[in-house]
Amino acid sequence: MRILGIDPGIAIVGFGFIDKQGSKLTPVQYGSITTEAHLDQAVRLKLIYESLNQLIERYKPDAIAVEKLYFNRNVTTAFTVGQARGVIMLAAVQHDLEIGEYTPLQVKQAVVGYGKAEKKQVQEMVRILLKLSEIPKPDDVADALAVAICHSQFNGYYAKLKEGLKR
Amino acid sequence: MRILGIDPGIAIVGFGFIDKQGSKLTPVQYGSITTEAHLDQAVRLKLIYESLNQLIERYKPDAIAVEKLYFNRNVTTAFTVGQARGVIMLAAVQHDLEIGEYTPLQVKQAVVGYGKAEKKQVQEMVRILLKLSEIPKPDDVADALAVAICHSQFNGYYAKLKEGLKR
Repeated sequence: MRILGIDPGIAIVGFGFIDKQGSKLTPVQYGSITTEAHLDQAVRLKLIYESLNQLIERYKPDAIAVEKLYFNRNVTTAFTVGQARGVIMLAAVQHDLEIGEYTPLQVKQAVVGYGKAEKKQVQEMVRILLKLSEIPKPDDVADALAVAICHSQFNGYYAKLKEGLKR
Repeated sequence: MRILGIDPGIAIVGFGFIDKQGSKLTPVQYGSITTEAHLDQAVRLKLIYESLNQLIERYKPDAIAVEKLYFNRNVTTAFTVGQARGVIMLAAVQHDLEIGEYTPLQVKQAVVGYGKAEKKQVQEMVRILLKLSEIPKPDDVADALAVAICHSQFNGYYAKLKEGLKR
């Protein structure tokens, strides 16, 4: 299955597509959508929505994974990131993607095996798990790949659970 | 000109269309878009986006007015309302609407003439200004009409400013 991981934001949206075959993970494409600060918020949201639609139509993921609200952010940041996340979720549901939402704790747990891991450790594990020569830059891209990896594991977990229920 | 006022939310989005001719305001249509709590957030966002698109295509407003972030709300609320506001702003910009954003203070100032007015006073002024027999219910609808009225005044103000600049 192909998973699209997303790190939402208004100035920069990190994205990473990975393929999962059995326990094997392969990076497909990753990068970021950026919007310029001088543009109206609404225009920036439209640019994010359109760019994401293009990416989804090009790389055809089966699932999308997005980080849940980061509780220690302030209200204004939460509101702005929320707006960006809104149009991202809209694009996902319009393309009938399976949607996974994970807390930062779950992402760290899944990628490093330790919920209080440092950002740097998460990024290094992303590099190792995806056999990349370097940590993808900026951080938003590495974060997007991390949440995609997280989904690949939870998804396997749920798949096993379902199998167990069938017996 | 026709103005669409919006009070964003995930469970309920209040909307109100008003027509402005000179200083005369006429209500056109108002009500709310509601989504059920048992649905996924992403599905609820899609329902809001689609319903709003239908309303915009039916009533063809020239402008949309939305309240700015309510600063005393908590982070989780801000995030959730932000998501809904994201798809609302997207629908607005996709239809090339003029966009007005106002703080609660600006709305109260415009509708009641007093920035610290009570919610009840604002609603009563909405009723009077639009010559309605009753205050529209729920509150979200009255709030949506209030922000539409606010835009009608600011818009007039900016129109005068522009005229002044031309001389």
